[in-house]
Amino acid sequence: MDGKVLIYSPFSKAMLTRIAARFELIDAQGKPPREAFSADELGDVRAIITAGGEPLGRAVMESLPKLGAIVCYGTGYDGIDRAAAAQRNIVIGHSPAANSAAVADLSMTLLLAAVRRLLTADAYIRSGGWAAGQPSLRLAPPRGMTGRRIGVYGMGEIGSKIAARAAAFETEVGYYSRSQHDVPYPYHASLEALVEWCDVLMIAVRAGSDTRHVIDAAMLRRLGQGGIVINISRGSVIDQAALLTALQDHTIAGAGLDVFEVEPLAPGALSALSNVVLTPHLGGHTAESHIAMQDCVIENLSAFFAGRPLRYPVG
Amino acid sequence: MDGKVLIYSPFSKAMLTRIAARFELIDAQGKPPREAFSADELGDVRAIITAGGEPLGRAVMESLPKLGAIVCYGTGYDGIDRAAAAQRNIVIGHSPAANSAAVADLSMTLLLAAVRRLLTADAYIRSGGWAAGQPSLRLAPPRGMTGRRIGVYGMGEIGSKIAARAAAFETEVGYYSRSQHDVPYPYHASLEALVEWCDVLMIAVRAGSDTRHVIDAAMLRRLGQGGIVINISRGSVIDQAALLTALQDHTIAGAGLDVFEVEPLAPGALSALSNVVLTPHLGGHTAESHIAMQDCVIENLSAFFAGRPLRYPVG
Repeated sequence: MDGKVLIYSPFSKAMLTRIAARFELIDAQGKPPREAFSADELGDVRAIITAGGEPLGRAVMESLPKLGAIVCYGTGYDGIDRAAAAQRNIVIGHSPAANSAAVADLSMTLLLAAVRRLLTADAYIRSGGWAAGQPSLRLAPPRGMTGRRIGVYGMGEIGSKIAARAAAFETEVGYYSRSQHDVPYPYHASLEALVEWCDVLMIAVRAGSDTRHVIDAAMLRRLGQGGIVINISRGSVIDQAALLTALQDHTIAGAGLDVFEVEPLAPGALSALSNVVLTPHLGGHTAESHIAMQDCVIENLSAFFAGRPLRYPVG
Repeated sequence: MDGKVLIYSPFSKAMLTRIAARFELIDAQGKPPREAFSADELGDVRAIITAGGEPLGRAVMESLPKLGAIVCYGTGYDGIDRAAAAQRNIVIGHSPAANSAAVADLSMTLLLAAVRRLLTADAYIRSGGWAAGQPSLRLAPPRGMTGRRIGVYGMGEIGSKIAARAAAFETEVGYYSRSQHDVPYPYHASLEALVEWCDVLMIAVRAGSDTRHVIDAAMLRRLGQGGIVINISRGSVIDQAALLTALQDHTIAGAGLDVFEVEPLAPGALSALSNVVLTPHLGGHTAESHIAMQDCVIENLSAFFAGRPLRYPVG
């Protein structure tokens, strides 16, 4: 055992068992470390494992005097106060590509379900509507995938996998990203230009203060009546109140959302809509991507405790 | 107006309006023609438009003495008594590729929803389960798409489009078809060999007496515990009672079904299951594929009434 590791966010037993076989763990089970443990117990913690979206600020870092590494489970690290970590010489790692296929797969699942109105269709059978020959307005023939313009916002590991999948459905794919990438899809010079062009907006941008609420009421009007927005990134990218209004008054046609401004999402106006498909932040939640993300955590911690640079540092 | 056309199956108003602009129609609205119309009214009917899966036998043909063409809406023509038609020199047409993209898209929608347990996930949010932090066994991390072996049964227009879509999800694709095709996927010499190899079976075979119940209890055991079966072809290809048992006792993991032995499907044992995703035979049901199928009907009828061979004859 090389040194003590604090489990900051709640994680599955399967993961903790696997990590505990290699490192000494103490598990705060989602509670603030100072509530869960004494200063003494926290005194020799050298690394943290956290879900990257969960707020982890200066106060937590200060409660762990020997903290040298923050290892995020998954791609995101938007919850970490990077300036505070840099000041204390704390390195930050993540699992950059481990869950990208699973997340891209889920974004296509949400898109196809929204386009083909899968939830309505399934419920129509289970409720007996089909057997009774009941008319269903929501099952009038929708516009399908063929020829749709798919705008991918963000062209990192996940965005490029979304683009590859979407292109296989006889669509046109375009993208906007801070910089142009070597990919076979047209680049749009701004998010506005991309949204003006596309009728499906796939959000795959890294979340941060610069992307907060960039998808607002004006952007949704730009997406337009046939438009569908899919978000597997972070809830903060979308102004959720504006999205709710746009869905209610049919400014856009539909949405597929894996992430929300406040998680877990409570039932309410959003979940009352039939033109949305909702999943509880499970983009990276497949057996194989959990294993791959755990591999990244283990490689990051092993490197750190051996005094080497992290294997997957935050760029 | 070139001649009278009988509408045999129920079709949408939008379609009938479009066809009626070019041809003289009488609409049986799904009733047997002899019930709906007098012998006199049927006497000068020269063509029929029908949904290809709907039984259309010798008796109907005999009630239409001038019938020369049966035009199927969609790809399938398994409901037509082809021998009877041939004896009376009635030609048969269909819309071979018009809806294949839409059908392939739906098969991927069903597969992704089954793999990622979309219905359970959405219901978990809407019911308040996520907000309450309720555990959900059905939401334990599933095996995702990456590396899955996708077996495509049938390599026609639809099968090849399914294969192209599935391959974009970082899977392995293989197929079985009566004959080998010039496609970049390994060919398996028999359906048994394909099912033994794959863990997802995508049924895209043309239905007929030779394919009735080929997916039976033994074949489902061969597919195995992690297996998922998707059917967008015809309900007759699967022994539905055997499938129900295999889903209930977890001989296979799940299914996505757009077609059933008896349609419409009434709520019952199948729709009580959480490991199936069900849609009411809407594979080809998108705005653009309806237009394309109508185009095929119009081209077939125009050719027929001009005394030329059908534009899209049944092969």
